[in-house]
Amino acid sequence: MKNHVIKGNICYSATKDALSVTENGYVVCQEGRCAGVYENLPKEYETLPCHNYEDKIIIPGLVDLHVHAPQYTFRGMGMDLELIDWLNTRTFAEEAKYEDLEYAEKAYGIFAEDLRTSATTRACIFGTIHTEATLLLMEKLDRTGLQVCVGKVNMDRNSPQYLCEESAEKSAKDTEEWLQKCQRFHNVRPILTPRFTPSCTDELLEKLSELQKKYHLPVQSHLSENLGEIDWVKELCPGTSCYGESYDRYGLFGNGCPTIMAHCVHSGDKEMEMMLKQNVFVAHCPESNANLSSGVAPVKKYLENGMKVGLGSDIAGGTSLSIFKAMAMAVQCSKLRWRLHDQSVGPLTMEEVFYMATKGGGEFFGKVGSFEKGYEFDAVVLDDSSLRHPQKLSVKERLERLIYLADGRSMTAKFVNGHVVYRESQDGIKTTVDGNDSGHGAGQR
Amino acid sequence: MKNHVIKGNICYSATKDALSVTENGYVVCQEGRCAGVYENLPKEYETLPCHNYEDKIIIPGLVDLHVHAPQYTFRGMGMDLELIDWLNTRTFAEEAKYEDLEYAEKAYGIFAEDLRTSATTRACIFGTIHTEATLLLMEKLDRTGLQVCVGKVNMDRNSPQYLCEESAEKSAKDTEEWLQKCQRFHNVRPILTPRFTPSCTDELLEKLSELQKKYHLPVQSHLSENLGEIDWVKELCPGTSCYGESYDRYGLFGNGCPTIMAHCVHSGDKEMEMMLKQNVFVAHCPESNANLSSGVAPVKKYLENGMKVGLGSDIAGGTSLSIFKAMAMAVQCSKLRWRLHDQSVGPLTMEEVFYMATKGGGEFFGKVGSFEKGYEFDAVVLDDSSLRHPQKLSVKERLERLIYLADGRSMTAKFVNGHVVYRESQDGIKTTVDGNDSGHGAGQR
Repeated sequence: MKNHVIKGNICYSATKDALSVTENGYVVCQEGRCAGVYENLPKEYETLPCHNYEDKIIIPGLVDLHVHAPQYTFRGMGMDLELIDWLNTRTFAEEAKYEDLEYAEKAYGIFAEDLRTSATTRACIFGTIHTEATLLLMEKLDRTGLQVCVGKVNMDRNSPQYLCEESAEKSAKDTEEWLQKCQRFHNVRPILTPRFTPSCTDELLEKLSELQKKYHLPVQSHLSENLGEIDWVKELCPGTSCYGESYDRYGLFGNGCPTIMAHCVHSGDKEMEMMLKQNVFVAHCPESNANLSSGVAPVKKYLENGMKVGLGSDIAGGTSLSIFKAMAMAVQCSKLRWRLHDQSVGPLTMEEVFYMATKGGGEFFGKVGSFEKGYEFDAVVLDDSSLRHPQKLSVKERLERLIYLADGRSMTAKFVNGHVVYRESQDGIKTTVDGNDSGHGAGQR
Repeated sequence: MKNHVIKGNICYSATKDALSVTENGYVVCQEGRCAGVYENLPKEYETLPCHNYEDKIIIPGLVDLHVHAPQYTFRGMGMDLELIDWLNTRTFAEEAKYEDLEYAEKAYGIFAEDLRTSATTRACIFGTIHTEATLLLMEKLDRTGLQVCVGKVNMDRNSPQYLCEESAEKSAKDTEEWLQKCQRFHNVRPILTPRFTPSCTDELLEKLSELQKKYHLPVQSHLSENLGEIDWVKELCPGTSCYGESYDRYGLFGNGCPTIMAHCVHSGDKEMEMMLKQNVFVAHCPESNANLSSGVAPVKKYLENGMKVGLGSDIAGGTSLSIFKAMAMAVQCSKLRWRLHDQSVGPLTMEEVFYMATKGGGEFFGKVGSFEKGYEFDAVVLDDSSLRHPQKLSVKERLERLIYLADGRSMTAKFVNGHVVYRESQDGIKTTVDGNDSGHGAGQR
């Protein structure tokens, strides 16, 4: 449904430091975009269908800037290795299975359904090197109504034979064919996905750069995650002043090329400066960075410098698709970084992590992640009634509590682009929105 | 029911480094204690009622060595202060409310029910300074069938007037009266609970020591949590060589006095040595120590030194009653401590945190936290079917995944001392155990 209104306790980030709260307010959706938040519904919108979520909390949809769909199968297992060993021991062997479409069908079915029933509305997702499996993943995600970017992964060196493309040329050719087949999707867009510098030859990066320019594609990859990895990149790319330059020298690091770099745990001044100047997005993945003993990114500094930062679940470095968990761990890890390592960068605030999870990451998708006028209408309705309490709480206190304690039972409904993509099945509520819904968001129950 | 058998995939810690897994095995309960784990049920037990939990995972009940019941109301809120400011700004104001029994009734009702439906079977719990509210808490917990220790808190200095007992004498007198009233409980035992050295005069500690000897009571308190707190204790207790000595000089630090000290984030060699020699239990509370920017305790070192260590949720420094979450965060925080701060103490393993959550903390209660012969029969049946996966997983992999991902939907049943205290209501299964159940664990649905 293109035009409607929802009512409840409305929270969104005005800036990284300011949370806007409107109790018992209205958010108006017109043509899939927000037409504003109101304490009292203006006369002109009174004829629109309005669903009253009463005392529930309504927030913008959450954004996951970095997640590996094929790794969802082994989340939370074998968490005893660092990055490179973990890739070689666990990850690559699992990703190789996606050559088998029967396996991919099962695995990606689970991933797509769990992402649909999470509070995430937008995501940037890694597939594997396999074109057919990646198309299958995109097919499944397209039907969820979520708006996501998915990448067929490129890797043509330093990878086990069973997960290594035979040449830069073949990798690029497969990628272009894949791009052509992506045109059939409504909600899913392709994103170029060189795995990371160690697994991509210079020739491959050059060819991907050509594709980027030809098709005006966004790019996602990994950057400065782990100390061992960074040393390896230095060896592999003599003459570069920082890891970021290994992408930048092929035009795959911002500027005209919308770019997400996951992690940036150990980025130095030069790298930060490039990212700031070239509008590269940081996907901060605190749980993964703890699980793989990578460290903690100085995210507060990135935010204060004006860099673009969102959050990522980084399945299966991270264990959970929940961006609430990513918010909580971003605060917690920033406190430990401050206490144990570097007193020059203070702990993150609740406002800052909520901003990163919504408007900060959302910016990668355009006007996304806020209820300000003109933003795409992505909304999540939260039910915190299972978190009982004897005292009166403010909406802001309830939201902070949800950041730490939300679980699979906390979401009542989810909208993307104005369309409902999820609604709790037990509550018995039938809304006017649901019945009239049509188009890409419909029929996803 | 005193004698029965449960069947499923049985996991318990043999040692801190060895997880015992028996697929499709049997645990036998006789007179409330384990009579062993078997791959095939011995003939002598074949006549006992047996409940088959099929492919579910059965573990010993989890142990929470440190939790503040009155703080459950504000878990996950206001997480932007360090310990002393947090106590003064948030905690003390909330605890003062428990003078009002109507408030206590509501708040403790929620706490007791949420603890019952968690995977925790044993806990050491702080109340407030208020005798009546603490008795009310104990009453509610007694009815859950869980086996817990609860303390009326003592504090007679450096506390706001509204939460400060008027003298050491009055505090001790109230405590002795409270102890007498505790005799009516079946499952709940009293534990002496001087809040921490800053809020207890020497006179008070001396009087509590007398009570300890007279009634042979266990003791719980806080130790070396936060740098500011440690400096303060140094000022308050001139002549002591470490924080631990401020309790030890009154005989409240192990030896004949079973003692739990929460946190021990910054314990030095001298303190560690005393704790080891005097069998003081460490309650490691990783989430709280992150939330309050206290740091990360070197728990791996404590374990390797042979010290006694369990886990604590430390509500509301911690946000969640889940000891699964405490396990996951113990691993994660140990990795960050190793990466950011001190390479001499390595990351914790899955085996170590599972040990701490069961047998390590359980030892405070006697033979608790294992399925070895003679241990009290505390068991939790876990259903991981909502964590779907396309590939075959080992039981150990499934257990590790639950440590990271268990939520409110993961528990099917819980036993304490052989009695069922929780059983999932939706599954429609009626077990032979339930119908015959009698005694303190019964009627808690």
